[in-house]
Amino acid sequence: MTGHPYDTDLERGPANHVPLTPLTQLQRVASTWPDKLAVVHGARRYDYGEFYARCRRLASALAARGIGKGDTVSVMAPNVPALLEAHFGVPMTGAVLNALNTRLDARAIAFTLAHAGSKILIADRCFSAVVKPALAETAAKPLVIDIDDPLDSSGELLGACDYESFIASGDPEFAWRMPDDEWDAIALNYTSGTTGNPKGVVFHHRGAALNAIGQILAFQLRADTSYLWTLPMFHCNGWCYTWAVTAAGGTHVCLRRVEPKAIFDSILANRVTHLCGAPIVLNMLVHAPDADRKAPAQTVQVATGGAAPPSAVIEAMERMGFRVHHLYGLTETYGPAALCAWQDEWDTLDKAGQAAMVARQGVAYPTLDALMVADPDSLAPVPADGTTIGELMVRGNTVMKGYLKNPTATAAAFAGGWFHTGDLAVRHPDGYVEIKDRSKDIIISGGENISSLEVEEVLYRHPEIMEAAVVARPDPKWGESPCAFVTLKPGAKKTDPDGVIAYCRAHMAHYKIPRTVIFGPLPKTSTGKIQKFVLRERAAKL
Amino acid sequence: MTGHPYDTDLERGPANHVPLTPLTQLQRVASTWPDKLAVVHGARRYDYGEFYARCRRLASALAARGIGKGDTVSVMAPNVPALLEAHFGVPMTGAVLNALNTRLDARAIAFTLAHAGSKILIADRCFSAVVKPALAETAAKPLVIDIDDPLDSSGELLGACDYESFIASGDPEFAWRMPDDEWDAIALNYTSGTTGNPKGVVFHHRGAALNAIGQILAFQLRADTSYLWTLPMFHCNGWCYTWAVTAAGGTHVCLRRVEPKAIFDSILANRVTHLCGAPIVLNMLVHAPDADRKAPAQTVQVATGGAAPPSAVIEAMERMGFRVHHLYGLTETYGPAALCAWQDEWDTLDKAGQAAMVARQGVAYPTLDALMVADPDSLAPVPADGTTIGELMVRGNTVMKGYLKNPTATAAAFAGGWFHTGDLAVRHPDGYVEIKDRSKDIIISGGENISSLEVEEVLYRHPEIMEAAVVARPDPKWGESPCAFVTLKPGAKKTDPDGVIAYCRAHMAHYKIPRTVIFGPLPKTSTGKIQKFVLRERAAKL
Repeated sequence: MTGHPYDTDLERGPANHVPLTPLTQLQRVASTWPDKLAVVHGARRYDYGEFYARCRRLASALAARGIGKGDTVSVMAPNVPALLEAHFGVPMTGAVLNALNTRLDARAIAFTLAHAGSKILIADRCFSAVVKPALAETAAKPLVIDIDDPLDSSGELLGACDYESFIASGDPEFAWRMPDDEWDAIALNYTSGTTGNPKGVVFHHRGAALNAIGQILAFQLRADTSYLWTLPMFHCNGWCYTWAVTAAGGTHVCLRRVEPKAIFDSILANRVTHLCGAPIVLNMLVHAPDADRKAPAQTVQVATGGAAPPSAVIEAMERMGFRVHHLYGLTETYGPAALCAWQDEWDTLDKAGQAAMVARQGVAYPTLDALMVADPDSLAPVPADGTTIGELMVRGNTVMKGYLKNPTATAAAFAGGWFHTGDLAVRHPDGYVEIKDRSKDIIISGGENISSLEVEEVLYRHPEIMEAAVVARPDPKWGESPCAFVTLKPGAKKTDPDGVIAYCRAHMAHYKIPRTVIFGPLPKTSTGKIQKFVLRERAAKL
Repeated sequence: MTGHPYDTDLERGPANHVPLTPLTQLQRVASTWPDKLAVVHGARRYDYGEFYARCRRLASALAARGIGKGDTVSVMAPNVPALLEAHFGVPMTGAVLNALNTRLDARAIAFTLAHAGSKILIADRCFSAVVKPALAETAAKPLVIDIDDPLDSSGELLGACDYESFIASGDPEFAWRMPDDEWDAIALNYTSGTTGNPKGVVFHHRGAALNAIGQILAFQLRADTSYLWTLPMFHCNGWCYTWAVTAAGGTHVCLRRVEPKAIFDSILANRVTHLCGAPIVLNMLVHAPDADRKAPAQTVQVATGGAAPPSAVIEAMERMGFRVHHLYGLTETYGPAALCAWQDEWDTLDKAGQAAMVARQGVAYPTLDALMVADPDSLAPVPADGTTIGELMVRGNTVMKGYLKNPTATAAAFAGGWFHTGDLAVRHPDGYVEIKDRSKDIIISGGENISSLEVEEVLYRHPEIMEAAVVARPDPKWGESPCAFVTLKPGAKKTDPDGVIAYCRAHMAHYKIPRTVIFGPLPKTSTGKIQKFVLRERAAKL
């Protein structure tokens, strides 16, 4: 509408329009609370003044090596300060951070470095056994910087210099660059993928800044927050908590290895208030040996996601002094896109009833625009009846920019103006969504859809079972039948397939009962998810 | 950089780019917590489901009268549900909300309606004595809708119909429109101005959404927040708390009149956790008759701003169970742009020391990009020495779009890419800014700059003084000399100018002491600020 007074002589300018980015938040917090504790790593502790100076030194050192707009810097590290600092120092040069999944093998790393076009690789020496062959194999020839952490001297040094010397060469007052536009890329995260080559998910500054705010709002992060890094920072940039905890002015408590004793010790020593982790991490805490367990001095807020937490795990965590929040998201949504917001009327439910409510994926995150369960082709929303299955779709500013160098996959993911998550869900009458399965994980037996998650939920309630995964096994009569793979708790009483099947018979509809039960360790992806495609292959060969 | 992989085939689209706006937050909260208490007004209470439905009805009824993109809807009302609903219902049509300052006279309202081009005026009947002549005088011929609140039947009905009938004609499921662009205007607020015609400050959806988030972050608003409307909603849209409390899912507690008894009663009855108000409102609470005072059941967070709160007022408020936060901002910055963030080391200061720290304007708001104190011409920042005076300037996404139909004033305000606040300030060594005066309020005596605020701060500590304002009085010898206007506390001991001057002599440098002290009521602007230009005129005539 040209000529309209509200659009005349009222243009954007430098005084009133600035790109949204997590970078300005670090600058603001360091200026407001320079002496506030920012980072804890073992016995090392430093404040926001130093944290900001180290990030600027990193940016300066990178710029001196020619890193700038549109370049890629990869980091292969556990949850150590160098990786946290890279979340700011790399984009401060205009470059894009590619945090590598540390559980990948050499071949996958070689592929990623080449696809991302990495010019610099900052790698912790403990991963040299994988990084060395990856560098030999990859088409990319990045400059290598070693992280030589006194807390772990395993592996060997591979690089031109070590991280501390590298940033020492940089200027702590470096005049870093703002993104030209908030749509500029800030991070590149590869989906772990179950088959084929992974896809490179591109995040932009706008989405990173907004999802960081979303975490602050959803999780009540504040200046007195002490956040324990149990969730890998390489996993969707730590669900954006790298940026969120910083924007809140809280304290980052690093952790090299996710082990129950180290977690319980750190919670006490650092007065931890918040942590995140996949249900598998919660399960590990629940089943930690008594000697390693220490009751937290205050309630610890725990955000979990990546898979629905079995209600038995939620209940056990709450008994131990944790308050569990269930989030849902994907790499494509910067991590969390939904949360199971608490309703006051749930206060009156018993623990099991509450856990069943919390096991649902819930409602849109504060910074997501919309979420729907719909027919993937027609985009017609399913009725909110709790039973009709559709695909979960989301839309908003915290949805990725797209897949790098993959316009076909990007277009497919965004078909019809919604991001298609690939998760099958229902919408309950209260508006909450609940995922029933990944599209490919549903079991179709005698024409009936069986949710593998629903069967697993029952198995997790079996007193001797620690982990469970259910997949389709080809069946000459029914097409497919449910096949359960389970591991038992340490010191579990002896149990056999018939016992498990009898337990299922008492707790679920007959057609859903696993026909086959296999005991043994479960194969997992690099992010700790159970690899159902491996189990499906095993089941097919039975 | 064309051809760059991070900018190729990674365009914005409906799945990953949505305008930032407060409107989607209401939709999200109403969908997440439809049964949660949203609005309290006297004995009336309604939930987010109904709040959202009422806003949609309003939008629908406005659209049926032809209101759409770029139109202006004015509202003249105290803090009642109709004005709160207009913050959503009006922009849901694409139109712009113009909340009128209820303390303006008929002539100023007539000017505003004409300048804004208002097509509809929603007005509370209690203001008919001003609205009626304004309508007779103005060039605008808006359709008038009456607010006929059972809580106040003063005044007369002037309009075509009343607000409740009007929205009853609207559709509660109305498909409201998203802004086409987040830069679209959402609100128009006229500066109260001390002389001449006021300027129309245009807010956009992006800034409104972000400043609302800023308030949530700065003020820790949550779903269990109960916010008492002591700050006028017409004042920068209630410093964006209209949108912020909604986005947090908190409860809006309306209040027609800002009176101590009503405030103390509502705090108890509605378990109020937060309120905002100018220092003058705090002062009123501090000096309330004992019979009206009731101790809050929990600490009430109070944000104050618009003028520096005298430290004596902060101390007294804290003793009564309030926790005072000092914010700073202007209409041009959507309300708050700075806050005096607490530092842990202040914990060890005595009450007076803490109050002195809190009386400073502080540091940038979480959603502001930057704030500086600089020479207004060269834009060179002043040293952080606590004494060198410069002009306070700010920059960021929560700075206005500009002044409506006033490109000259807009260009002047944004000169050099910073918004010039017109406030004179220093930066302290700890980085905190402190306003010394408005440019025009500084007193220059014998070549020395005297901050009127500094003299007032001392006067406020005098045991018998309730309010104080110091202005320049022309002086044949010194050029100007400080002239104090004061009011005494109810029941104050008799005191005279010499006593006040003697008190000042004991507490400040000689050259700053007021040469003249005048007792009597102080003239105030429609937003409760003391009108120094009136006092300057009086001082000139003494």
